[in-house]
Amino acid sequence: MPHSIVGRKPVLEALLAGTAIEKIVLLQGVRGSVITEITAAAERKKIAIAIADRQEFNALATEETAQGVVAVIAERKLLTLEELIAKVKETNEPGFLLLLDEIEDPHNMGALIRTAECAGVHGVVVTKHHSAPINATVVKSSAGATEHMPVAEVTNLVQSMDELKEQGYWIAGLDMSGDRLYTAMDFTTPIALIVGNEGRGIRRLVREHCDFVLSIPLYGKIGSLNASVAGGLVLFEAARRRQEHKGDLKSQTKP
Amino acid sequence: MPHSIVGRKPVLEALLAGTAIEKIVLLQGVRGSVITEITAAAERKKIAIAIADRQEFNALATEETAQGVVAVIAERKLLTLEELIAKVKETNEPGFLLLLDEIEDPHNMGALIRTAECAGVHGVVVTKHHSAPINATVVKSSAGATEHMPVAEVTNLVQSMDELKEQGYWIAGLDMSGDRLYTAMDFTTPIALIVGNEGRGIRRLVREHCDFVLSIPLYGKIGSLNASVAGGLVLFEAARRRQEHKGDLKSQTKP
Repeated sequence: MPHSIVGRKPVLEALLAGTAIEKIVLLQGVRGSVITEITAAAERKKIAIAIADRQEFNALATEETAQGVVAVIAERKLLTLEELIAKVKETNEPGFLLLLDEIEDPHNMGALIRTAECAGVHGVVVTKHHSAPINATVVKSSAGATEHMPVAEVTNLVQSMDELKEQGYWIAGLDMSGDRLYTAMDFTTPIALIVGNEGRGIRRLVREHCDFVLSIPLYGKIGSLNASVAGGLVLFEAARRRQEHKGDLKSQTKP
Repeated sequence: MPHSIVGRKPVLEALLAGTAIEKIVLLQGVRGSVITEITAAAERKKIAIAIADRQEFNALATEETAQGVVAVIAERKLLTLEELIAKVKETNEPGFLLLLDEIEDPHNMGALIRTAECAGVHGVVVTKHHSAPINATVVKSSAGATEHMPVAEVTNLVQSMDELKEQGYWIAGLDMSGDRLYTAMDFTTPIALIVGNEGRGIRRLVREHCDFVLSIPLYGKIGSLNASVAGGLVLFEAARRRQEHKGDLKSQTKP
């Protein structure tokens, strides 16, 4: 079922943030400066606007908070792991995946997908259970990165790790107690990085299935970075190394 | 004036997150499992609990949402720039500061202070105007890092940059349009990094006063990282270089 965003400010913000909105439904007769902004933005972005009578509108949004405006969000199609792997193969690059092990906070989920997109990650894998759904908050926190990033949903992450290993991926979990510095990792092979839950970290069984467990040296008194900053550090270290490696390969093939 | 956190769950979370709470005020007669948890946690942390009658309680919390519980937060003492500079000198290390130019979102503010603490930054400078106040949300998002991190508040950031330059600091702003890669920067001198507002970035005048403007190469389609992830990348690059430099100095002084 498609979900929706209700309320004037939230709908306007979602529009401006580039959320994938299927259509906007206005209650007959609503007006006001924010409504004007919403209709202008929707027209600019070629998003359909429907006018509903009270009965139709209430079928969409039962809450008082809707303030006469609902944005219907197109349901996000998530891939299977197999579809994602096939998609990565098309790039003709060593695969670069981010696996999110039960990230629960939609802001973190969005920030991680945004960071992954900026680091050139080919795809993100999320767990079906105990993960934030890819909803409007995630889309917004991702600054639109969810639109560009293939996302696969899996039921059993450990089994997915095995499948990735069979496909030649090395799997590196991120954990403050890891035994290898993230700066000492070879990121030029096909690689899947795992970032764990904000509170609990990566699960024990997931950790045991990693080829490497990477840590980030901390120079202060507190014991951990937040999940999206930690993920960002490792993703960009990987991106930099992969880029340098690409450069090296190019210079090697020069006549 | 001290501010406060109201409501059972918020107060419990603040307690568990290690927020600097001065005292907890309970409305006479309140009970329940969360109240029991709050009193247990407060006792463990040696935080005073006061019982107030309805009149006293309503003087503290007018909202219905208080649910009979208020946590009074001690006011955070912010330093002047001069005090901060003096504090850094005591470390006998080349200064390492983070300047936040009008960071408005308390979660970003907290995440940046947390990341800075983990990267070994000596102190953070915030602008008096257009910045999130160091409130309970910031404290919580910082995972307690605000307790360890000296924070100075300044009215005129550009003037502060001049003062820092006089003290031998190099000033590097972070901006996606910067002309120097963050990985090509010498971070071993006294250094002040500037991270700008989430939406607008660093202000023009601030940017013009920077010795360097650093950029982060992006490998995707979207145009920017979020402020705390971008800040994290540069802070940890600096931390790594400073650590390596320290190691080099040590090995040079070996007999």
